[in-house]
Amino acid sequence: MLPTSPGWIKLTLVTLPIRIPHPPMFQSFDATSAPALALPRVARLRDLMTRSGIDLLLVPRADEHQGEYVPANAERLAYITGFTGSAGMALIARTFAALATDGRYLLQGRAQLDAATFEIVDGVATPWFEWVKSRLDPGAVIGFDPKLHTAQAIETLAADAKKAGFKLKPLARNLVDTVWGRERPPHPKGAVTIQPAELTGATAAEKIARVQAVLKDEKQTAVVLTLPDSIAWLLNIRGGDVAHNPVALAFAIVPVRGKVDVFVDATKIDAKVKAHLGASVKLLAPDALGDRLVALKAEKSAVVRADFATASHWIVTKLGRAAVNGVDPCIAFKARKSAAELDGTRAAHVRDGAAMCRFLAWFDRESGSGRLDEITCVKKLEEIRRATNALKDISFDTISGSGPNGAIVHYRVTTPTNRTLKSGELFLIDSGGQYQDGTTDITRTLAVGAPSREMVERYTLVLKGHIALATARFPIGTRGVQLDTLARMHLWNAGLDYDHGTGHGVGSYLSVHEGPQSISKRGMAALEPGMIVSNEPGYYKTGAYGIRIENLIVVTPPQKTGSGDRDMLGFETITLAPYDRRLIEPRLLDAKERQWIDTYHARVLKQIGPQLAGGDKAWLVAATKPLDG
Amino acid sequence: MLPTSPGWIKLTLVTLPIRIPHPPMFQSFDATSAPALALPRVARLRDLMTRSGIDLLLVPRADEHQGEYVPANAERLAYITGFTGSAGMALIARTFAALATDGRYLLQGRAQLDAATFEIVDGVATPWFEWVKSRLDPGAVIGFDPKLHTAQAIETLAADAKKAGFKLKPLARNLVDTVWGRERPPHPKGAVTIQPAELTGATAAEKIARVQAVLKDEKQTAVVLTLPDSIAWLLNIRGGDVAHNPVALAFAIVPVRGKVDVFVDATKIDAKVKAHLGASVKLLAPDALGDRLVALKAEKSAVVRADFATASHWIVTKLGRAAVNGVDPCIAFKARKSAAELDGTRAAHVRDGAAMCRFLAWFDRESGSGRLDEITCVKKLEEIRRATNALKDISFDTISGSGPNGAIVHYRVTTPTNRTLKSGELFLIDSGGQYQDGTTDITRTLAVGAPSREMVERYTLVLKGHIALATARFPIGTRGVQLDTLARMHLWNAGLDYDHGTGHGVGSYLSVHEGPQSISKRGMAALEPGMIVSNEPGYYKTGAYGIRIENLIVVTPPQKTGSGDRDMLGFETITLAPYDRRLIEPRLLDAKERQWIDTYHARVLKQIGPQLAGGDKAWLVAATKPLDG
Repeated sequence: MLPTSPGWIKLTLVTLPIRIPHPPMFQSFDATSAPALALPRVARLRDLMTRSGIDLLLVPRADEHQGEYVPANAERLAYITGFTGSAGMALIARTFAALATDGRYLLQGRAQLDAATFEIVDGVATPWFEWVKSRLDPGAVIGFDPKLHTAQAIETLAADAKKAGFKLKPLARNLVDTVWGRERPPHPKGAVTIQPAELTGATAAEKIARVQAVLKDEKQTAVVLTLPDSIAWLLNIRGGDVAHNPVALAFAIVPVRGKVDVFVDATKIDAKVKAHLGASVKLLAPDALGDRLVALKAEKSAVVRADFATASHWIVTKLGRAAVNGVDPCIAFKARKSAAELDGTRAAHVRDGAAMCRFLAWFDRESGSGRLDEITCVKKLEEIRRATNALKDISFDTISGSGPNGAIVHYRVTTPTNRTLKSGELFLIDSGGQYQDGTTDITRTLAVGAPSREMVERYTLVLKGHIALATARFPIGTRGVQLDTLARMHLWNAGLDYDHGTGHGVGSYLSVHEGPQSISKRGMAALEPGMIVSNEPGYYKTGAYGIRIENLIVVTPPQKTGSGDRDMLGFETITLAPYDRRLIEPRLLDAKERQWIDTYHARVLKQIGPQLAGGDKAWLVAATKPLDG
Repeated sequence: MLPTSPGWIKLTLVTLPIRIPHPPMFQSFDATSAPALALPRVARLRDLMTRSGIDLLLVPRADEHQGEYVPANAERLAYITGFTGSAGMALIARTFAALATDGRYLLQGRAQLDAATFEIVDGVATPWFEWVKSRLDPGAVIGFDPKLHTAQAIETLAADAKKAGFKLKPLARNLVDTVWGRERPPHPKGAVTIQPAELTGATAAEKIARVQAVLKDEKQTAVVLTLPDSIAWLLNIRGGDVAHNPVALAFAIVPVRGKVDVFVDATKIDAKVKAHLGASVKLLAPDALGDRLVALKAEKSAVVRADFATASHWIVTKLGRAAVNGVDPCIAFKARKSAAELDGTRAAHVRDGAAMCRFLAWFDRESGSGRLDEITCVKKLEEIRRATNALKDISFDTISGSGPNGAIVHYRVTTPTNRTLKSGELFLIDSGGQYQDGTTDITRTLAVGAPSREMVERYTLVLKGHIALATARFPIGTRGVQLDTLARMHLWNAGLDYDHGTGHGVGSYLSVHEGPQSISKRGMAALEPGMIVSNEPGYYKTGAYGIRIENLIVVTPPQKTGSGDRDMLGFETITLAPYDRRLIEPRLLDAKERQWIDTYHARVLKQIGPQLAGGDKAWLVAATKPLDG
């Protein structure tokens, strides 16, 4: 009998508001934040807490924009604890202190923290509030910087605190900054640049009009934008304030009609950029934001939209009763790339693919020498990418893991963990570039010497999932969660799986992680034509090896399929680099899968071959031969 | 690069609180509720509304238990409107009246309603409140029977009404019942029977202890149960108050310790059942419920759980501040079948499979005659099931659709729509039985004469999806939404799809639709070992034919798969009847799929063959031969 739509099904899924950035590379830990310094800093902080009547102070890793990377002057968590991991919050009380982080960072935390001062809490196993609850006295006052926590996070915390009998106190000044004093680095001043409309496919004025149409439809007076990549998209600008993400730290208020207020450090903007922003934008100092929000609230029947999941408690409080929660309208627009953006991204991938193939050819020549290590590979790949003369930045810190390090899903090589590549191992390299015409992100897993039969079988299962996703057809409205299984089903049938999502959204010369699209167990957004998403199934054998195969793919427009009666969406693969054929077992592939690989390899040869010469070209010809050839 | 868990993903999925039951069969419409009678009844209702100060009266189809089927005395919607469809709500105002229903029932609504009295609203396209809003004056009073609407529905309505400036008025008496008066049928008095612990695998006392442990864990004083199938499961009883669902209409209150209060008509319970309920249950009259809820509220620090998605506004209001929303704890226990329940269900399927095979053999002998029609097939199948002498009831009104009727997904044959089966058509039959040891539900699609090539190709694609789901392996915690795609991917690749879920939960001699499990775009519950679920992909060509293939499958315990490193769940297929081999194109199947069909058919022959004789047996032997044989 047909399924009904039962009314009693409860949807209680929650997505954790955790973003996962990464620690700096190739270094032991920053001497200025070494454990020895933590205690005096904490002692000074406790003094300030006493004077402010605070029993517990929250020191999150996030900055005012909740971004994946934060500038040096917002590294408060590292300054006060010594911990340089990218996810975590310090809980500093008068008589105890702790760092709540997740499983990935427990080891790093133990290495970096002064154990006499800080305990470590696995915040996934025990939510930090649960942990701290029993350690505080009734009536305790929890202090926080309202600019560093989202409205949503504080709403949840307020409910929990009320139940537990604690008080919340938003602080007008950040106490860590007071301790930091003159040693605190200045605000970043990366120059703002213009992203030309030929590359974006629409002028800033056109995009502003689109956002204003949304506000008009939803009867809202204005929207406050707090995400730098939304502002970069909206205004066709880029910046240089944080690592790997070409954004300018700024806030903006888009009114339902009229000029956009942009709150940004004027020294980052030259006359050319000012002219570019022209009549549609009014530039204001960052400090002017608070007064502008209060003025907005005072306007008659003001309805001001802010995204409570990313906008700070401070912003929403300033807006008071005028605030309404609504997703940042730029997110959906930004996710559906224009034809110009897709053309640019394809060009970036042809360029980046050549760099990647040069690297792979070099790797095959050198990996037998017994002298390659993980850091050498990272440096070589970055050197080759820089040689394109088009690289603006790498798009994230390269993951370069050999043997057992490849099985650590969020591994980043540092000097102490660096391994020399050995014969019989696998080597996993996940990297990408920021070019003005597009952002790339590619993972290849490579054999060093002869791989074991198990490695080949499992690589081939991962590849089968990667192909199943690349070749999927699906109806309009399909969500990422519905496609995630295609990438896993062959592994599942063999009793295997991987503990990360299959695909994340990717920006157009913007963040390598963007939403709302996601191919994962939590991927609730519909996949729409023009969205770029990664296709990266994997398999990890702890202590032995890691396998991941990643291409970027673009959702294609609805089209007829065979004699079918419904138009279907699909994917176009845009990443161009061969798979390691030593790791493919053709007998585990069906005819269509073999055909797909051969066709893909022929395309790689055709698009990348002309850019290569000599040994690199010969390598590519061999690497892209038909599997049965 | 690996996906992160972006904090800004908004989960705004809502499941519509619509249950989809079905109209009665083989009849034109009940003469007592014919259109001619509607107007005088509505006129009397309007009189009562005026006296009660009501501007709009809501008359839902639901009864106090929000079940899929309602007893005759709760058919208020049919009584007042003439509409016998299973989903809908009448909106009766002083100067207008409408029926809000969904797309399936618009035609039936037009046929049954007096057009001069009732408009029809497509409640999916236009939510009924949006439709009615502009037609009411400011300050209008909306009256409703608080026992017939869930707490959740009234909460939503209250917010909408407040925004629109209307008042909500819960009515102490149901005005339709007043109009209905002495003509209203009496409450159903189906005898309560005992479901022996040998079949359920646990005594009522054991189950009550499990529920009480949940209450203790969650620090709750008691839980109010309003779903008859939860109460049937808990107390190891069955009943006969509504069609096709062997439940007794009742309410229950389970305290954290002590006896369960059961509110049920005493005349339905004989001495034997009373003895069975024994010391763990206190029997009370249905009318005593209200006072008991009020008494509960008055207890010191009472925390009383009710499932706001299914418990009525009336119940939650009686509980007042003591009420907390929590899913009915029986639902999860009931869904995970005991070993005894699974053994019983398997036995029911062996018995029902024999009946189904007798029917299929008969169908093949007779379908060429040109004399079979849809109703004849329904009657024959029911006759064969009854001949088992074990059938308690069919588990739902049989879907019997030939040619274009097969393409109407929720089709139920009635005298006016009945079609004679023609050569070259497909015939779809979806049916099931209630046996004391288990509930069955099976769909087969059959060729009448020679099917077209397109029919065969599309049937084979549906079958490939059915096999992909039946053979899936998946990790612990996998939700139905993640598996739904396996059943669709082959159709999607061919530009085809179907507009219903792939699988619903099934009870153990209980409702053929149960939760929380669901294999569909909305299937957010994890699939757990012991859950029974249907596997029923389909394809429907409007105006031409319908294809659906349905078996029931059971989630198997975690186990090793090959050399894999993770234990995986999977499915055991328990339905036993051959697929129509004339509709299978072996060249579209891979070797594993052909092998699966041959193995399944061999199992059907082995388990069903011994129960058949003569022509039926010969038919089964031929129908279960290997595909390549």
